[in-house]
Amino acid sequence: MKSDLNSKLSLNALNMRRSPARNILAGLNQKELISFAGGYPNPDTFPVEDLKIITEEVLNENGAKVLQYGPTEGDPALREAIAARYSSKGIATEASNIVITTSSQQAIDLCSKIFLNRDDSLICSLPTYFGALQSFWFYGGVPTGIASESDLETTVIDLIKKGQKPKFIYTVPDFQNPSGITLSLEDRKRMVQIAREYDLLIIEDSPYRDLRYEGKEIPALISLDRDRVIHLGTFSKTLAPGFRLGWVIANNEVVNRIVVAKQSADLSASVFDQAIAARYLEKGLFDRNMEKTIYQYRMKRDLMIGCFSRYMPEGVKWTTPEGGLFLFVTMPDGMLASEILKETLKLNLAFVPGEIFYCNGGGQNTMRINFSYMDLNRIERGVEILSSVIKSFLK
Amino acid sequence: MKSDLNSKLSLNALNMRRSPARNILAGLNQKELISFAGGYPNPDTFPVEDLKIITEEVLNENGAKVLQYGPTEGDPALREAIAARYSSKGIATEASNIVITTSSQQAIDLCSKIFLNRDDSLICSLPTYFGALQSFWFYGGVPTGIASESDLETTVIDLIKKGQKPKFIYTVPDFQNPSGITLSLEDRKRMVQIAREYDLLIIEDSPYRDLRYEGKEIPALISLDRDRVIHLGTFSKTLAPGFRLGWVIANNEVVNRIVVAKQSADLSASVFDQAIAARYLEKGLFDRNMEKTIYQYRMKRDLMIGCFSRYMPEGVKWTTPEGGLFLFVTMPDGMLASEILKETLKLNLAFVPGEIFYCNGGGQNTMRINFSYMDLNRIERGVEILSSVIKSFLK
Repeated sequence: MKSDLNSKLSLNALNMRRSPARNILAGLNQKELISFAGGYPNPDTFPVEDLKIITEEVLNENGAKVLQYGPTEGDPALREAIAARYSSKGIATEASNIVITTSSQQAIDLCSKIFLNRDDSLICSLPTYFGALQSFWFYGGVPTGIASESDLETTVIDLIKKGQKPKFIYTVPDFQNPSGITLSLEDRKRMVQIAREYDLLIIEDSPYRDLRYEGKEIPALISLDRDRVIHLGTFSKTLAPGFRLGWVIANNEVVNRIVVAKQSADLSASVFDQAIAARYLEKGLFDRNMEKTIYQYRMKRDLMIGCFSRYMPEGVKWTTPEGGLFLFVTMPDGMLASEILKETLKLNLAFVPGEIFYCNGGGQNTMRINFSYMDLNRIERGVEILSSVIKSFLK
Repeated sequence: MKSDLNSKLSLNALNMRRSPARNILAGLNQKELISFAGGYPNPDTFPVEDLKIITEEVLNENGAKVLQYGPTEGDPALREAIAARYSSKGIATEASNIVITTSSQQAIDLCSKIFLNRDDSLICSLPTYFGALQSFWFYGGVPTGIASESDLETTVIDLIKKGQKPKFIYTVPDFQNPSGITLSLEDRKRMVQIAREYDLLIIEDSPYRDLRYEGKEIPALISLDRDRVIHLGTFSKTLAPGFRLGWVIANNEVVNRIVVAKQSADLSASVFDQAIAARYLEKGLFDRNMEKTIYQYRMKRDLMIGCFSRYMPEGVKWTTPEGGLFLFVTMPDGMLASEILKETLKLNLAFVPGEIFYCNGGGQNTMRINFSYMDLNRIERGVEILSSVIKSFLK
């Protein structure tokens, strides 16, 4: 008898949803493709030469150590280096408050694991990062999306009235994925105040904070409340996603829980990659490379926005992000981004329909556009294609 | 108001248990310590020079790719190389049935995640690998331990009668952690037959299979039933635990579920480390290095067994493993390994009390002894210390 898998699956497994963004890209001719779909950094920004030197050094000096098991909390040198960099940016942090995770996706997953029971409520933005929704759903969490920060308090009150007090607020305050929007200082202060008033945690997911192309840095939520805010960072957009290295900054109690959860999740992140990243930071290469990256991405963002202004028909709106990797496009009501995608794929252009980022089933007329991955020529050509397809639908 | 963490924790988090093995090692003077405690490979076995060459090649030829995001299923070249190696060992496998995981600990965690609901039953050995128990408990799984394979069928029948049909049997058939015991071919066939008869899955955790020091290879469970058996492998004992690379081999349906679960867990394992491991296998370096490793570990095992014979008082028994990293010691009833550990730690000798491997609360008079990590001098010295402490307790 063949095994009957379905009868054996957990509720977690039955709740899980595959990433549509990954499905869109699967099976396409990647070489010809103009992809505004992924959240990929441009490989030109990878410091390959520096990493060659560092990996050799690390293997020469510490081969026995960097290839061995390491502490679940992470490489002490890396935790120190990250703490030092945060502190230098005005966000006071101790190494002991940092746990290195196998990507910030894992950090989201571990937070979901330690906080969410089946049917537990949480609050996020409309739209919000799909990978976070995936983790919330996996553990049976029920996200309530808010379209604007001004809805936060009434939403919390409503949920509490219904006996569904949220466990946490999940937010990407800087250059949000997918919207590109940045929370104002006022909104941040208000969020922390609400979290205190109603005893909520805040998960501050911060993968893009270092990628600011204009305007002034706004204090991170964790610098407004070091007790209640769990801050997540990553090297995926600023060094190399291939390393799968992220981190959690949180109070000691949360750190302890994350560490135990991580022990049974994968024991530790790659010890080898951590040692490389630590030395990369220690040598001061991180900020030097970020300057070049920011210069490149700023140009791409400017070109993308310029092309949108030039090619897009009336009625189509988009955000102008001050940083990050994405802008978010809203078409007139009734237009379906998923239908437009079918046509653009025929012309070798991919993007992600915005609806996957809406936990309430909305957003059919929206799309997420990445500007970091493609070179300048393809950005212009891609926006031209996208505009012409949208125009054909508008008629 | 300070946040009240306990009110926010999930049942998962409240069920989690920290690894006592890691606690034992924390805070000790590692330099002076004779450690029989961890499951660490000896760093002499790490092919540092080969890895220096390979990392440079990989960064030179493929820097843009190996530092970028990669597929959740894993590096295609690595999946191919692993499939080829299994096939060469008589275990027919396709790359499409392999998912690369961030360590086999993650593979256990993902299996727990997709199969276990709270209070779901499963079967494992008495004793069994603690990291697996950690994952089972985390998701609310209830392990029933069997002291002997001959108890398997009656245990399954009992559980079914009580309405607690087990989701799977978890087993480490080769040189088990912690017992060092290997399942006979007869026991393997019987296990598969029982799994078929009662429609159970089998999770075959196989980290030590390549580390055989004597005797003939016994067919892997997955080669007896490619549908029902989920086979887990790892590079942690045979290449470098620092890479955190493991894999699942399973039928397509299970592979699909594991992939989606992994997407939200960490998206993929380190793309960089995967590329290095793939090339290491492709160059044929893996088996060459295994020969040297096996030669070294066989000598250590033989010395360890020899010292036990020479120094241990009557009434103390131990297993003689044909491979792997551990032997398992049973003292007379009433002796407490945890008390003995307190004394040996004062003399700078560490081991893991066996009780942590017993899901039924037993095993207080047992201990797990690792022989791979220490050099030959320390093995002899360590057994001498251990024996003298045990003797002092026997008086």
